[in-house]
Amino acid sequence: MKIDLNSDLGEGYGAYTVADDAALMQHISSANVACGYHAGDPMIMDRTIRLAREHGVDLGAHVSFPDLLGFGRRKIDMPLPELESHILYQLGALEGLARRADHQITHMNPHGALGNLASCDPDVAKSVVGATMDFDPEIAFLALPGSAMEAAALDRGARVVRLFLADRGYLPNGQLAPRSQEGAVIHDPAQVVERVVEVLKTGELTTTTGQVIPMPVDSILIHSDTAGAVDLATRLRAEITKQGGAITPLSQQ
Amino acid sequence: MKIDLNSDLGEGYGAYTVADDAALMQHISSANVACGYHAGDPMIMDRTIRLAREHGVDLGAHVSFPDLLGFGRRKIDMPLPELESHILYQLGALEGLARRADHQITHMNPHGALGNLASCDPDVAKSVVGATMDFDPEIAFLALPGSAMEAAALDRGARVVRLFLADRGYLPNGQLAPRSQEGAVIHDPAQVVERVVEVLKTGELTTTTGQVIPMPVDSILIHSDTAGAVDLATRLRAEITKQGGAITPLSQQ
Amino acid sequence: MKIDLNSDLGEGYGAYTVADDAALMQHISSANVACGYHAGDPMIMDRTIRLAREHGVDLGAHVSFPDLLGFGRRKIDMPLPELESHILYQLGALEGLARRADHQITHMNPHGALGNLASCDPDVAKSVVGATMDFDPEIAFLALPGSAMEAAALDRGARVVRLFLADRGYLPNGQLAPRSQEGAVIHDPAQVVERVVEVLKTGELTTTTGQVIPMPVDSILIHSDTAGAVDLATRLRAEITKQGGAITPLSQQ
Amino acid sequence: MKIDLNSDLGEGYGAYTVADDAALMQHISSANVACGYHAGDPMIMDRTIRLAREHGVDLGAHVSFPDLLGFGRRKIDMPLPELESHILYQLGALEGLARRADHQITHMNPHGALGNLASCDPDVAKSVVGATMDFDPEIAFLALPGSAMEAAALDRGARVVRLFLADRGYLPNGQLAPRSQEGAVIHDPAQVVERVVEVLKTGELTTTTGQVIPMPVDSILIHSDTAGAVDLATRLRAEITKQGGAITPLSQQ
Repeated sequence: MKIDLNSDLGEGYGAYTVADDAALMQHISSANVACGYHAGDPMIMDRTIRLAREHGVDLGAHVSFPDLLGFGRRKIDMPLPELESHILYQLGALEGLARRADHQITHMNPHGALGNLASCDPDVAKSVVGATMDFDPEIAFLALPGSAMEAAALDRGARVVRLFLADRGYLPNGQLAPRSQEGAVIHDPAQVVERVVEVLKTGELTTTTGQVIPMPVDSILIHSDTAGAVDLATRLRAEITKQGGAITPLSQQ
Repeated sequence: MKIDLNSDLGEGYGAYTVADDAALMQHISSANVACGYHAGDPMIMDRTIRLAREHGVDLGAHVSFPDLLGFGRRKIDMPLPELESHILYQLGALEGLARRADHQITHMNPHGALGNLASCDPDVAKSVVGATMDFDPEIAFLALPGSAMEAAALDRGARVVRLFLADRGYLPNGQLAPRSQEGAVIHDPAQVVERVVEVLKTGELTTTTGQVIPMPVDSILIHSDTAGAVDLATRLRAEITKQGGAITPLSQQ
Repeated sequence: MKIDLNSDLGEGYGAYTVADDAALMQHISSANVACGYHAGDPMIMDRTIRLAREHGVDLGAHVSFPDLLGFGRRKIDMPLPELESHILYQLGALEGLARRADHQITHMNPHGALGNLASCDPDVAKSVVGATMDFDPEIAFLALPGSAMEAAALDRGARVVRLFLADRGYLPNGQLAPRSQEGAVIHDPAQVVERVVEVLKTGELTTTTGQVIPMPVDSILIHSDTAGAVDLATRLRAEITKQGGAITPLSQQ
Repeated sequence: MKIDLNSDLGEGYGAYTVADDAALMQHISSANVACGYHAGDPMIMDRTIRLAREHGVDLGAHVSFPDLLGFGRRKIDMPLPELESHILYQLGALEGLARRADHQITHMNPHGALGNLASCDPDVAKSVVGATMDFDPEIAFLALPGSAMEAAALDRGARVVRLFLADRGYLPNGQLAPRSQEGAVIHDPAQVVERVVEVLKTGELTTTTGQVIPMPVDSILIHSDTAGAVDLATRLRAEITKQGGAITPLSQQ
């Protein structure tokens, strides 16, 4: 059983940092790297790409609306062709730095408000997938099972890597529980590890209402900016290995 | 005799425009496209790349310091590794959009303050050339004969395209006359055309002091934002053809 | 009959310009000056404020969402307290430059997407009015008659200056006809002048459906970035004077 | 003996934070608040101003070159009139938010590269002082004794608050020792406290070469972003009180 451990990295900007990228990089197998729109600048991107390369960590594009002030969490109204141009700009910029560092982009994972839209809006999902496939048809899409993004990627013949957000509660319909709801975010690391074990063993997850739903998983997301992220990654890695799983970059699954 | 007609295009931003790119594109054979740092945004870049592709115009990267407010004309102090990351970011971003439009980057021409530095500072020139060659060793460099940029490109084994600024006065040492000096900028289109003819016929140019110096030329720059740019391009094209020259993109010379 | 002629000025950025501010300033009596969010930078703001001061033109704050790339025409999701902070930031910045130039802010007119929201969304209108009155309770609000902005301003005890968009078609309910509809934008200057005369003479306007509605007017907007804006301003000024009206800054009405 | 404890606060941006402003605010008596150029955004500025107001902490403008990416640490070439416009823009923006929060700007302290220039370049110092005094002649200037900034402020008849950087080594000429030099930065909190005591008791400081120079002090700077800043502030406050000093905002000295 091959499982990818994934995290969003390179989310600082200039003098700002948000996570201990160097420490996390030792425990994960794939990283989504910010491309300068919600976070990240060319220096940070370069450093993060090189760290990923050194640790055999897959490189993904963590594209966003152009919104540093809002950390990409705000929806910005724009026509789809403009959105596609922004995605290609970011993918290319990441590729520009990756090429010199002898690394390559293996996957796509839109960030924040764009990620939410791509999950539930088929037109946005189609734009994200279309622009990405036009750039490089080998790129895989990290997507929640049942999302518009998964559908758009499958429709275009792209590879989908099913992502499990281990610290988030799920609704019976497979969507994430809204943050305002109790149980939407699981803060106890032990409980997060337990949920991963449940999902890996059974292929199923208990939702916030107690219902059990199928939960196919290729990759597990670790939020890099939560306290204890490095510790959680270490524990997850150990537990997955104990369960007979192998932490494997998504490109090698 | 093959001559390239070159211009800086795509220098608008959002709602702003500075030149009639669509009209100019019909007369030139290569364009340097702004990459979002001093000008240009992903929508404008996309539009400019497609226009170039349609008209058989070569695509160049017109990279800059990150300085939209100063239109890239101000020097920004930064270490060379940071400058290189900025260049790779811009090159990649342009490539991201070019790839979908089925066009490709053939040349590099740094803009404004960065261009000036690359002309006279060997370290900056080496960084510009190095980052570009790491990205794609086939990219040619537009450079003034005798500049640090030309030297750095030749040193790295890169192809150099010698650029002639037809509307600028030259000093006996081959440098551009500073703008503060009389005769530094030639505003009369007839005189500009005349100078091009002189240079093409003789391989020499009369400087602001009346001295005659060698002036080897592969490409002639037309400033897109001066009044009458389209008209000047038309006249230059006609006159060059009359002299037996052939307007030819630099990639086909 | 005192009438204010109003225009949005200072909407360039860095090397970019969009209108002939210096020429227009000679014909209008109040200006709304961009504050660096959708357009404008400190140099342009300074220049525009000084021009206004020299010509006895009232100075207004043309505040916006932070969106240079979209020229402030895109809605950006943000909580109202954040919006209020952005408004105070812009008002203060304009005041900072106005103070040295010995001019003062007399009115407020939100731009683009923010202006549209303030016209139809009572909560946004209340935030715009509230932040502005907290800054300076003497500031008047340019508003369309019947808009949420007018209501919020009156509710707070602020002065309202009723704005007439002479080149836009109106619906029977007093709203602007959407741009997609025929007759939404009137391009013929003669017709624009005619409409102003109708409104000044009768206090009424013929809508796009032929219905006649009341149209109280204190100020007439001239779009600075349309071709012929200076000419239109000249004609309007002449025609209003001929009708016995006096072009008067809103602060002196 | 009245001594001001001063710190640079509000230096986050959007989702980024750099210091525990709320904790530090309880120990200092004056704060320099970033104005959106090198750091700070309207929300953070609003929060920081309100915190200062609540704790009776003086409010200063921490203005910068427009350079979020470089955290204001890079020199940007620009003419002095442009620099002055940028200073007025920032001062006004801060005032816009301060006015609603019922607080007011008492002092000016330029940041980073601009601060360094204002310390050693008389023309830049004159521009900083001139723009500030045009905005509000009551504003005091935090300056190193002997700096160009102090001279320019005194020349204009402004009040100068002499700042002591307790954790930095000084040269015999009263300038800060360059960071590359040994002893340029003092990391041991005990030693920092000891130096403050020396300066307060004797009015003199031992330089990096062992020489003793006069060191008149009105305000002591605590770097907010160094580890242990809150602890250092607590110790300094206690020690100064023990020495018979009174921590007093600069506006009340």
